[in-house]
Amino acid sequence: MKNYIIKDEWNIIEEGFDPHLNKISESLFSLGNGRMGQRANFEETYTGESLQGNYIAGVYYPDKTRVGWWKNGYPEYFAKVLNAANWMGLRIRIEGEELDLAKTEVLAFTRNLNMHEGYLKRDFTARLKSGRELQVTATRFYSIADDEAAAMQYSIRPLNFSGTFSIESFIDGDVSNQDSNYDEKFWEEVSSDAQGAEAYLTLRTRKTAFEVCTGTATRLFKNGTPVTEASEPIKRTKYTGLVHHVSAGTDETLTILKFAANLSSENHGKDELETRCREVISQISAKGFDQMKAEQAQAWKERWAESDIIIEGDVSAQQAIRFNIFQLFQTYTGKDSRLNIGPKGFTGEKYGGSTYWDTEAYCVPFFLATAPQEVSRNLLIYRYNHLEKAIENAAKLGFKDGAALYPMVTINGEECHNEWEITFEEIHRNGAIAYAIYNYVRYTGDRGYLASHGLEVLIGISRFWAQRVNWSEARQQYVMLGLTGPNEYENNVNNNWYTNTIATWCLRYTLDVMEQLKSEEPARFEALLAKLAFRQEEVTHWKNIIEKMFYPEDARLGIFLQQDGYLDKEQVLAADLPASERPINQKWSWDRILRSCLIKQADVLQGLYFFEDDYDVETIRRNFDFYEPRTVHESSLSPCVHSILAAKLNDEARAYEFYLRTARLDLDDYNNDTEDGLHITSMAGTWMSVVEGFAGMRVRDNKLHFNPFLPANWKSFSFRIGFRGNNLHIRISVEDMLISNLGDSDLEVVIHGRQFQLPANKQLQTALTASA
Amino acid sequence: MKNYIIKDEWNIIEEGFDPHLNKISESLFSLGNGRMGQRANFEETYTGESLQGNYIAGVYYPDKTRVGWWKNGYPEYFAKVLNAANWMGLRIRIEGEELDLAKTEVLAFTRNLNMHEGYLKRDFTARLKSGRELQVTATRFYSIADDEAAAMQYSIRPLNFSGTFSIESFIDGDVSNQDSNYDEKFWEEVSSDAQGAEAYLTLRTRKTAFEVCTGTATRLFKNGTPVTEASEPIKRTKYTGLVHHVSAGTDETLTILKFAANLSSENHGKDELETRCREVISQISAKGFDQMKAEQAQAWKERWAESDIIIEGDVSAQQAIRFNIFQLFQTYTGKDSRLNIGPKGFTGEKYGGSTYWDTEAYCVPFFLATAPQEVSRNLLIYRYNHLEKAIENAAKLGFKDGAALYPMVTINGEECHNEWEITFEEIHRNGAIAYAIYNYVRYTGDRGYLASHGLEVLIGISRFWAQRVNWSEARQQYVMLGLTGPNEYENNVNNNWYTNTIATWCLRYTLDVMEQLKSEEPARFEALLAKLAFRQEEVTHWKNIIEKMFYPEDARLGIFLQQDGYLDKEQVLAADLPASERPINQKWSWDRILRSCLIKQADVLQGLYFFEDDYDVETIRRNFDFYEPRTVHESSLSPCVHSILAAKLNDEARAYEFYLRTARLDLDDYNNDTEDGLHITSMAGTWMSVVEGFAGMRVRDNKLHFNPFLPANWKSFSFRIGFRGNNLHIRISVEDMLISNLGDSDLEVVIHGRQFQLPANKQLQTALTASA
Repeated sequence: MKNYIIKDEWNIIEEGFDPHLNKISESLFSLGNGRMGQRANFEETYTGESLQGNYIAGVYYPDKTRVGWWKNGYPEYFAKVLNAANWMGLRIRIEGEELDLAKTEVLAFTRNLNMHEGYLKRDFTARLKSGRELQVTATRFYSIADDEAAAMQYSIRPLNFSGTFSIESFIDGDVSNQDSNYDEKFWEEVSSDAQGAEAYLTLRTRKTAFEVCTGTATRLFKNGTPVTEASEPIKRTKYTGLVHHVSAGTDETLTILKFAANLSSENHGKDELETRCREVISQISAKGFDQMKAEQAQAWKERWAESDIIIEGDVSAQQAIRFNIFQLFQTYTGKDSRLNIGPKGFTGEKYGGSTYWDTEAYCVPFFLATAPQEVSRNLLIYRYNHLEKAIENAAKLGFKDGAALYPMVTINGEECHNEWEITFEEIHRNGAIAYAIYNYVRYTGDRGYLASHGLEVLIGISRFWAQRVNWSEARQQYVMLGLTGPNEYENNVNNNWYTNTIATWCLRYTLDVMEQLKSEEPARFEALLAKLAFRQEEVTHWKNIIEKMFYPEDARLGIFLQQDGYLDKEQVLAADLPASERPINQKWSWDRILRSCLIKQADVLQGLYFFEDDYDVETIRRNFDFYEPRTVHESSLSPCVHSILAAKLNDEARAYEFYLRTARLDLDDYNNDTEDGLHITSMAGTWMSVVEGFAGMRVRDNKLHFNPFLPANWKSFSFRIGFRGNNLHIRISVEDMLISNLGDSDLEVVIHGRQFQLPANKQLQTALTASA
Repeated sequence: MKNYIIKDEWNIIEEGFDPHLNKISESLFSLGNGRMGQRANFEETYTGESLQGNYIAGVYYPDKTRVGWWKNGYPEYFAKVLNAANWMGLRIRIEGEELDLAKTEVLAFTRNLNMHEGYLKRDFTARLKSGRELQVTATRFYSIADDEAAAMQYSIRPLNFSGTFSIESFIDGDVSNQDSNYDEKFWEEVSSDAQGAEAYLTLRTRKTAFEVCTGTATRLFKNGTPVTEASEPIKRTKYTGLVHHVSAGTDETLTILKFAANLSSENHGKDELETRCREVISQISAKGFDQMKAEQAQAWKERWAESDIIIEGDVSAQQAIRFNIFQLFQTYTGKDSRLNIGPKGFTGEKYGGSTYWDTEAYCVPFFLATAPQEVSRNLLIYRYNHLEKAIENAAKLGFKDGAALYPMVTINGEECHNEWEITFEEIHRNGAIAYAIYNYVRYTGDRGYLASHGLEVLIGISRFWAQRVNWSEARQQYVMLGLTGPNEYENNVNNNWYTNTIATWCLRYTLDVMEQLKSEEPARFEALLAKLAFRQEEVTHWKNIIEKMFYPEDARLGIFLQQDGYLDKEQVLAADLPASERPINQKWSWDRILRSCLIKQADVLQGLYFFEDDYDVETIRRNFDFYEPRTVHESSLSPCVHSILAAKLNDEARAYEFYLRTARLDLDDYNNDTEDGLHITSMAGTWMSVVEGFAGMRVRDNKLHFNPFLPANWKSFSFRIGFRGNNLHIRISVEDMLISNLGDSDLEVVIHGRQFQLPANKQLQTALTASA
């Protein structure tokens, strides 16, 4: 837990330079635009502790799997996001003395991530060993308007000396991943060129043969006037740049503008990659830094208009929620269905930049409400396009006849993870993918998606469940053995209630959708069944499973059992753990964790969150009261679900308490791991805590429902959402709830169970609490 | 499955050279003398496929653990037996042309492992590319009489040419382990020297700093006359040798004698290592090859007198059982309590040369009956000496107050294995270590061992069980969660019947031993309790656990359940598996194996084997009839237990069938893995199948019991055992059973439940089957 970020409604601010915090700040101040991103590494040389990170979406390397003991079924490769060329490099020397904050006295230092306008700014004053003092201001951003481009402005002012500066502006592609399994470098050089102001470096990934051309144009100014001295090109393997020599004194400012583009062969032909890159560089350098920066501000303004949450009376919470929203949009823009959301986005290597069930369970709801429908649709299409691979993945484990098991971790549709208890057993992810389809259709009303894509995925998933269960002669029921639920502090359990529940839910939902399509679009439906070689016996089998599935529960306690035998465990409560033993995932042996009743993250409660309408409130309460005290919340995905459920159970204090644990998770380095990168996917959970928790928003029967409350120390909170073509502004304050329909069509909304008309371009004001 | 070894009662013979079989033969023809051993690599250069292996007992390297995903509690190192210097190297060139069977036409080739006299002989005729033909005879052995020494005789006869031979006799210590986790070499050179006929190389292991001095004396003869030309020394890093140049023609034979010694700093001071090695070389070369070989034959003769099994009417079975006994004695002699028995002995790297529960469950019974009492006692002392490490190992997992968890895999007492489901959960190994103490005392009557060593180990183990169980409020019984039983095709199960059973057996046995010692040696007993800070409440707690332990069973089927929920699995039988799906550990994904009811090796049945007297025969039969058909026997340790149980259940045909699966496991490469090394520990199981199975031998109430039968196609079988100072010869034939007491004291024996006197130096003849 740290507390060094200065509270501000729109900015993330660090004052003073502490090298021990540098890797944390590198994560927090990360930049991205959905196509690419980077950690907040310094432009100039820094030899202190740093995790260098520049990432290009969709460009990965299949690193050969390394395990201690191989198990049949493990994937041979772990596709991981690549550390790519560093385009912003500057090497600044004054008569041989290099600027390097690790070897320099830092007299003043400020870092500012301006979330309103989408740029990072750093100001510092440094005294070199020689006594030379200089002042630097560096501003940079990844453009949303020109999404293959980035730009930076780097100004240097000598404070107490005159001298000749040697400024090397370079692109360095000789980079490696810290998580490389065999200490290999993943890039090979295709070509490089540096002349005049421009430098180009094209690299190819080994094995996957992705090519990325990185181009830069560097312009040097003294007091605003272009410096005309010719630069010298520099060339090493996978490294290219230009050196400028220029003198400056105390009344002068040197300004370096660097325009950069990263073009990937995913989006351009390899033979035209450099040509296109030169075009982009030409366009953006013609446009200029100020114009690009203005367009960036405008783009962010539009984003915020769709998605901002405003909290009055709590700057810390305000900063946190905006930080979460900002980072989510930096990571994923939804323009490209080949891309997805890695748990760390573009902010670190951990988790390989790959897709987890986090996307479906946490990110889809966020993007449904805050971005155009196409954005969440593209997240679904991503999985649709991976269906064939999911079928292959299931086949590797012995499943057949079109059964699909989506990977636990993937970039390209192939499984990447290799712990048997996760890879083979944490199969509830398949359910989340079906649930996202349901959630998307429920929110958007886009039933056409089911016929065009959704049902095919649902059938693949249902076929998997139908083969994964088995009939227990002993119980005369279907059971599901060998599972790891969302609570990964249990492995290889039988009849995980959540997994059994979501499995039969998938079967039911698939049958429902089939029924509907059969009557609505019979020809298309029959064609699909023929394509999938669907047999009528499958329906019979599925119905049989639905009817005869076993769900563990304890009648005496009135709760669902997380799994068979859960009550055989020694029942202890998280609150009784001494602080010295927490987090248990660092303090306890794995064996002790597995045998303990303590829970990592919502498991039964995840199911009650997803399927809340299938259970009465008292059932949810009994389960919440039983499981939450046994939960250590050691996953970043845990608190939000508990916050939403607590809100539903009208436990406002606890709802707010859980919200606090998710909202500033990274800003305050709650889990002591922010330096590895940000918890991007759990940030969507923070948004859910506010909108589904505090505002109690749900979609039922094609209508928005709200059950709002205002956290005790807030004056108000308000948020924007899109819903079926309309844009709504919702404000919940001490006095009342205001819903403004900014769109052009009428809506019905339900507040505390009461139905209201909300005409186009009108506002609705209601009391905050339900009338008795 | 292969079938190329020629059947012979005393020899393992390979005729003809097939490079594809070479690695298998390298395993089968391995040599060892308990202190060191080697695979049957060729003396001369061989560039074909080969697994080079020379091993020195007790000399290991802690290789840094490599896993995909770290779990708390994993050991940082995996101690593994080292591939050590190759002392027998010869490089033979005739005017530049090198002898290398991979590049040579092999006209004739025979390999013979003479088990009766303990040596390996190879004869071959080769035609080099130039057309030169030569005949080679190579004989070598690891001396039992001089157990730091080995010797070889290598004769070359040119068949159709004359020429000058360059013969380089070397020691090569620049070797590596194929299973090295980081491709490191583990040895560093300390010193080397080569002059005259002798060469010395001293190497030190990295990290562990063991030193081993390898010395050789090479003598060259032409037609029996010493060749006097001076040799040239050769020196490279970790490599030393001598080159001789000698001419020979078609009527001449060149003979190289090489005497070798390997001295380890485990047995000598580092400062005197080379001096002592020179002394050994001097002694053995003075003794000469023929004398050493004669002493070797004599030593093996004495071994066989104690331990041979003679089978009449089945050469294949005869060869197999002798091969098993021979390899066991090559691996372990019991002179040194710091050593133990790796599953592959000195025949390969797999399993790291480390100690598993195989030793206690399979090897102890063999050595009890076939070797002096001190041998099995030393196996027990090995664990006694590791007690402190076992307590540390348990403490790492969160256990306290002297609880001891012996490692799954170890060389020096520290845990080496790193699969959580094995390392942390396959804890039944602790029970086997207690059982071995019980078994040793039962067989030898050496109750003094309990007071001096055994009880301390038993208390450590019992303390572990007492903490490892937990009270289930739900069941109102003690349960044991998170287990992997002997059947490793199940992981992380609850209430594995075998583990629960052996746990409470340990508690009971410990309490029994405590009761006895308390009355027999009260002072010593009190001193021990004080040393261990033993509290009287521990007894109460243990008794409570014994009384209230939960054992899963199915009343309807009348069987014990392998674990909670076993009957929820789809019940299929091994016999119904198509051949194409076997072995399942190669054909199925791990997840499918885990969910299946199929069993790797005896689990419930292992318990019924250990504790047979606690269960009536019908209970054992019901469990056998239920579990055996579900068992795929994919562990080499599986068939023997089934053979013994089948014999007990009077199912003679099946007892013999299981015997066949264990006896020629390696000779016929049954599991297609002999090339990795031999299954040394399961060889003891083969012996058990004959003695405990066919002869039905048990020790009860200090007496030997027999329930013999003769396998249908055998004429007779006979074996030697030692029992409490007496040496017995037992012969079971078609006609009768003959027991000869070759010792000097009278015995009582029980045959088919009937008691007989067996006076010293007398023979007892009885009918083979029980009279009605």
